[in-house]
Amino acid sequence: MLTDTATGPAGSQAVRETNLGAVLRAVREAAPCSRADVAATTGLTKATVSSIVGDLIAHGLVREVGAASERRVGRPGVMLTLDGRGITAVGLEVNVDYITVVAVDLVEQELLSRHEPFAAGAAGPEACARELVDLLRRTLADPVLAGRTVLGAGVAVPGLIDAPRGTVANAPNLRWRDFPLRARMLELMEEAGLPEMPVLVDNDANLGAVAEYRGGHRAHTCDLVYITGEVGIGAGVLLDGRLLRGSTGYGGEIGHIPLRRGGPLCGCGRRGCLEAVAGIDAILRRTVPDLAPTAPVSGTHLAAAVAATVERADAGDVGVLRALERAGSWLGRGAATLVNLINPQAIILGGYFVPLAPWLLPPCTAAVDAHVLAPERGGCRLEVSTLGLSAAARGGAAALVDALDTGRLPLPPRRPLERPRQEGARPNGRSPAR
Amino acid sequence: MLTDTATGPAGSQAVRETNLGAVLRAVREAAPCSRADVAATTGLTKATVSSIVGDLIAHGLVREVGAASERRVGRPGVMLTLDGRGITAVGLEVNVDYITVVAVDLVEQELLSRHEPFAAGAAGPEACARELVDLLRRTLADPVLAGRTVLGAGVAVPGLIDAPRGTVANAPNLRWRDFPLRARMLELMEEAGLPEMPVLVDNDANLGAVAEYRGGHRAHTCDLVYITGEVGIGAGVLLDGRLLRGSTGYGGEIGHIPLRRGGPLCGCGRRGCLEAVAGIDAILRRTVPDLAPTAPVSGTHLAAAVAATVERADAGDVGVLRALERAGSWLGRGAATLVNLINPQAIILGGYFVPLAPWLLPPCTAAVDAHVLAPERGGCRLEVSTLGLSAAARGGAAALVDALDTGRLPLPPRRPLERPRQEGARPNGRSPAR
Repeated sequence: MLTDTATGPAGSQAVRETNLGAVLRAVREAAPCSRADVAATTGLTKATVSSIVGDLIAHGLVREVGAASERRVGRPGVMLTLDGRGITAVGLEVNVDYITVVAVDLVEQELLSRHEPFAAGAAGPEACARELVDLLRRTLADPVLAGRTVLGAGVAVPGLIDAPRGTVANAPNLRWRDFPLRARMLELMEEAGLPEMPVLVDNDANLGAVAEYRGGHRAHTCDLVYITGEVGIGAGVLLDGRLLRGSTGYGGEIGHIPLRRGGPLCGCGRRGCLEAVAGIDAILRRTVPDLAPTAPVSGTHLAAAVAATVERADAGDVGVLRALERAGSWLGRGAATLVNLINPQAIILGGYFVPLAPWLLPPCTAAVDAHVLAPERGGCRLEVSTLGLSAAARGGAAALVDALDTGRLPLPPRRPLERPRQEGARPNGRSPAR
Repeated sequence: MLTDTATGPAGSQAVRETNLGAVLRAVREAAPCSRADVAATTGLTKATVSSIVGDLIAHGLVREVGAASERRVGRPGVMLTLDGRGITAVGLEVNVDYITVVAVDLVEQELLSRHEPFAAGAAGPEACARELVDLLRRTLADPVLAGRTVLGAGVAVPGLIDAPRGTVANAPNLRWRDFPLRARMLELMEEAGLPEMPVLVDNDANLGAVAEYRGGHRAHTCDLVYITGEVGIGAGVLLDGRLLRGSTGYGGEIGHIPLRRGGPLCGCGRRGCLEAVAGIDAILRRTVPDLAPTAPVSGTHLAAAVAATVERADAGDVGVLRALERAGSWLGRGAATLVNLINPQAIILGGYFVPLAPWLLPPCTAAVDAHVLAPERGGCRLEVSTLGLSAAARGGAAALVDALDTGRLPLPPRRPLERPRQEGARPNGRSPAR
């Protein structure tokens, strides 16, 4: 079990849904496996497992795949595996300069991914909600997803999120305050004629951490921190495989820890926050001031400015190299704070930090080494994400699959009865006479 | 369930001990309560509960106290309560300038508490281990504890602790490195002829948090941070009622987060750590430089210097007030970092911060307000401990009681059969003929 996002079962359905989730997880982890294997893993009776597996097959989540291997004694059983064909979960991210969508199937294989420049920072929350719903509509209309049932949409936003309510309390770099994103999206989705589906809203760093935990290069690392590299810097913290949310859901705000007294102004209105000295905007203002003569850079296309920074650093521009060195060092001081307080196994840098990593990571690592009390950084690895700018959106999709796995999402609708596909089956679906 | 300290049951005993713990916790929470109440709370069968209660009575942990209240229907049952008479748990703390002991009974009532000046910072680990064992010996010999079985000793040390091994990895302010404190204490205890007992070693801030959680003014606050106010500053972090230890046990090192670039030298050898600008030593060097002309102050009696600081602040000494204001503000920046990352319900300042709180707390709170992104500090209260300098030792004792409660400590030996005490019972213990 990983996350604790929004929805959860209640009342008499709860036990059944918890058991459904347990069976689904057991199949995910051990597939191909028999019903008896699942009963052994979950501790449920064989009768319960058979009944649940029947449901899962009917809803298109699990399928049978031939007989057990020959090593088994006695009558060979039919094996089970997850059914990747009928389901999709969609993750979306809105950030200062882009929106992203990722659709995955039940085994979290990526079906589709789009990254579109969008000046969300300037557009305001209403326009962003419309853009997100439009991107969702276009995604669901994509032939790649044809015939798939949508589990729901998980939306990543850089800011303080009241996840249970789906409300954005404060997103400084988007300039949103108390915006009920889920409620507004649900209205717009109905207007657009989209099918009903659950919508989760969560912090981008939290969802990035979920994506890393479920499918990054350090997947299943239990004490893991994902750091977003955008205009803002956020931390998604997994402790013992569970998201650290804090008592009111506002944990992980590493971007606004006070690092430099009297330092530069931050998007949150304070001075010297980590993201004011090491966020992408702060970096670009020093490395490509000519591309963005007025601060903040956020209104422009960050991707192009980041690419220009990489080019100049590659060319050995001393000013650029010095600015990256300084930013990496501040980032390391922030990361050292995390390591001293939380002692994780890995910190993974994401977003725009990825292309800048060749220059940021060495001074960052040196600063962590210099400021962590525990020997050898308490065993913490400092690495770069392999998921790039799609991590948070991917995490939004993964969080929905996780919610299904843990019985916190209702099953998708039953699928119409489908005859087994056979070579030479007639177009009307009936098998030829034998 | 609260902590996860050192010992744990293994093998075939495990289930029985887990169930014993569950019954003990149920009685602790609901006493007076019947065996049937315990069965209902724990989900165990009445037969199992009866058998376990029999054991707990025989070992002097639970006792019967008359009949159920009249509100109950049917035959009145005998009620159970914890037996505070036969057991004690001992907590010890060694810190830079003192050692402390607290003994509690099974209901965590304080039986005895001693606080002794001791220049531990100068004495070295071997002398400290001897002093701790001698204090333990004197404590167990105290008439107040006569006839009680000792559950064990829990020892608090300011530093990075490998709790499962009972080793102090690094205690900068004591100048200890890789000292096997538990092993050494067990040897010395055997030499001194003390009874065999488990010894737990843990970080002072962790044990302070345990003490606050189990018996402070914010007891049972699930997301709680305790900050030690000694030469060093440490944080004990409880999330969801569980200690945040981190992946290698080195979490909570708030004292060494880098706050001030190029700031004053810290005991750990780095510069600008929180405790180098807001630890008690740093404060005293500015408020009472005449009492300790050479830095660090730690060799002298901190208590007297703290008292002198309080006196001068009370008298309105401008330099002293300014130094306390500055230290409080740095402390607030450190606390803001915790609030941004962890979003706790309460931060409780302990140790020598308690007498200095009238001057430290206002600038500290102002700095937290200034540097936390979440509205209203994410609901976090900033308060002063009511447990004073005995918090960590108290937590050492409480951690043992908690280990018993959660089936991670073996039961103490069975008590000799005791006849019910009656008015007029004859000295040989036999009841008079009826």
